[in-house]
Amino acid sequence: MNMPENDKQSLAMVTCTGPVNIAVIKYWGKRDEDLILPINSSLSVTLHQDQLKTTTTIACSRNFQQDRIWLNGKEEDISNPRLQSCLQEIRRFARKRRNTGGSTSDVSSVSHKVHICSVNNFPTAAGLASSASGYACLVYTLSQLFGVESEQLSAVARQGSGSACRSLYGGFVQWKLGERSDGKDSLAEQVGSESHWPELRVLVLVVSAEQKSVGSTSGMHTSVGTSQLLKYRADVVVPSRMEEMIRVIRQRDFPAFGELTMKDSNQFHAICLDTYPPIFYLNNISHRIISLVHRYNQYYGETRVAYTFDAGPNAVIYTLEDHLPEFVQVVRHFFPPEVNGAEFVKGLPVCSTELSEDLKRNINMEPTPKGIHYIISTKAGPGPCVVKDPNHHLLGADGLPKKSAISD
Amino acid sequence: MNMPENDKQSLAMVTCTGPVNIAVIKYWGKRDEDLILPINSSLSVTLHQDQLKTTTTIACSRNFQQDRIWLNGKEEDISNPRLQSCLQEIRRFARKRRNTGGSTSDVSSVSHKVHICSVNNFPTAAGLASSASGYACLVYTLSQLFGVESEQLSAVARQGSGSACRSLYGGFVQWKLGERSDGKDSLAEQVGSESHWPELRVLVLVVSAEQKSVGSTSGMHTSVGTSQLLKYRADVVVPSRMEEMIRVIRQRDFPAFGELTMKDSNQFHAICLDTYPPIFYLNNISHRIISLVHRYNQYYGETRVAYTFDAGPNAVIYTLEDHLPEFVQVVRHFFPPEVNGAEFVKGLPVCSTELSEDLKRNINMEPTPKGIHYIISTKAGPGPCVVKDPNHHLLGADGLPKKSAISD
Repeated sequence: MNMPENDKQSLAMVTCTGPVNIAVIKYWGKRDEDLILPINSSLSVTLHQDQLKTTTTIACSRNFQQDRIWLNGKEEDISNPRLQSCLQEIRRFARKRRNTGGSTSDVSSVSHKVHICSVNNFPTAAGLASSASGYACLVYTLSQLFGVESEQLSAVARQGSGSACRSLYGGFVQWKLGERSDGKDSLAEQVGSESHWPELRVLVLVVSAEQKSVGSTSGMHTSVGTSQLLKYRADVVVPSRMEEMIRVIRQRDFPAFGELTMKDSNQFHAICLDTYPPIFYLNNISHRIISLVHRYNQYYGETRVAYTFDAGPNAVIYTLEDHLPEFVQVVRHFFPPEVNGAEFVKGLPVCSTELSEDLKRNINMEPTPKGIHYIISTKAGPGPCVVKDPNHHLLGADGLPKKSAISD
Repeated sequence: MNMPENDKQSLAMVTCTGPVNIAVIKYWGKRDEDLILPINSSLSVTLHQDQLKTTTTIACSRNFQQDRIWLNGKEEDISNPRLQSCLQEIRRFARKRRNTGGSTSDVSSVSHKVHICSVNNFPTAAGLASSASGYACLVYTLSQLFGVESEQLSAVARQGSGSACRSLYGGFVQWKLGERSDGKDSLAEQVGSESHWPELRVLVLVVSAEQKSVGSTSGMHTSVGTSQLLKYRADVVVPSRMEEMIRVIRQRDFPAFGELTMKDSNQFHAICLDTYPPIFYLNNISHRIISLVHRYNQYYGETRVAYTFDAGPNAVIYTLEDHLPEFVQVVRHFFPPEVNGAEFVKGLPVCSTELSEDLKRNINMEPTPKGIHYIISTKAGPGPCVVKDPNHHLLGADGLPKKSAISD
């Protein structure tokens, strides 16, 4: 697209970043596929954007002929229905706001077309669902561009990808399932800020997957249609687990938090197995990580480390700062990596330590060389942020992706 | 033990064989650990003893100083509580029978000590639980020795190993959970004889296990104590599945039988995953077999083949005679064996056949060399049988194991 020089000032542009979140009470199953309304509430920890984030720049201009989107350097189809839902909803909010005289922006007209450019700072191979950070960041950036402020932003992100609603807040976030059929009360809500539990640490153990897994959208659809256990989980098990999870987070009770996190991860995968045909997200390496965590906790007679697995074989580990160095060394010992040192552990630094012979003997597992590719070390972090420095825009003055955004 | 020559005629001896059974509605969880009363009914197919059986010889003599038992050539501890339960119960029945004047036997006095010798014709490595055929055969042989006839025999076998009660009958057998706290109504009952569905065929796919699994006794104990989904399965899901399974077996409706069998196997393993700590019996090879079966059925647009897995990674496949040769060839293609021909497929002969390129292309899986060690080809068969030929006794005239019984 070539824009006349004298029209450049008509370009409004905002760049924001959005975080990944990892559920400790899992979302699995929709009661409404269009509005993305869940069959149970869920709760997650928002991860720090220093390690994992989506960056999105959105520009709007009366010179743009159509809405366009580039994801990780490649132009994608803007007609994606979930993308369209988010765009339409935000524009509806913006119009409502303008009509009530609240608009502060001149150039970012809601009637203008937008160009969206988005990149993740983590490889797809890390197996972290990018849809949550992606849609949260998209909706937040649009809201900044159009000057929309609303408690309902999470309901818009939810219509892009269910779990995206939880990425609109930092720290500990619940997504209440709500009761209304229009979904207006199916919203995310912060349970504790990112500074609530500073000792809590997170490790992403990136496992090599042999096969591509079933996507979560189609997987949960099949589960809702075929698993007899899922309804019981959603109606009976999760409501009491949500209450307990909120309580143990408020009390910063790690053993209780860890045990409940592991139990809910296991129950989610149990539901996947009860689905017909069954869905397997855990592989032999995942099984060994689970076994390692239980043996490690057993050795100390308390839950010091907890695992959770989403729709793939990668483990996310929650632990406390004090136990982090030893557990990382345990992982390194039982999954001897191809690369060592800093290349194996990315992100927040982890002190090195020695393992006692007694611990290694008691864990009593055969090492699995190269079972884990690398570890991302991180912690809880804030919700979406505006990037002030215009040098970080992913779109140029011409409204097209900068070269750096393509190669990122 | 040396027995005086003139006492040899005081030796009574009986040899019987007993079958393995494979559940299609799974037993998992006890409501009474001592009496072995289950939390749900279950249903199984008794496999043919030409391929898989336990053989047991029991002798009794007033010259025996104590009860003794040899399993697969090795003397074991007779004080095992479950073994003691079975011995005591049968002796109680025998005494009752004698008191009511029903005894027909002179030498096999219930007050005499017994020598028990038992061997399986399948290796432990086949991963088939030998406790069901073992206890069924033990109880049946004791009943023959002491001249006990009772509808309650399955309740005695149940106290040895829960699923053993189902091995007292051939064909299709349900184990009704019962209501009484003394377990007298927790009995096995035949649903269809071994000739009811002659086209039904069974394949045991012996998979190599890397690790020893959690035993089923301790596994189900942990599940009862920790799985929130198990109670719902036992109380709500299984009762309707039992009715449906009996109906589809009576109708010889393979697609319905196969689908329900697979769903119940999956739900059992889902419960294992919902256990804390979780129990994994399925490994990557098991997952691939499951995937292969679903892709094969999908190709034909109907359920031609069904899998079921017990407390280990081995698959048991149910199919109809007509589809057997092709499916065996499919297994051979996607799990290229180390050994070929007859060594790979043991038991009932399977015709060889060619696979169409279209089928192979549509299944679209990477072959997994050596993933399956070998296949045992079999079908439904009768319950325990008396072996008439005294040459087949496992004990000699001296009441001690013959050399052949030790090397078997």
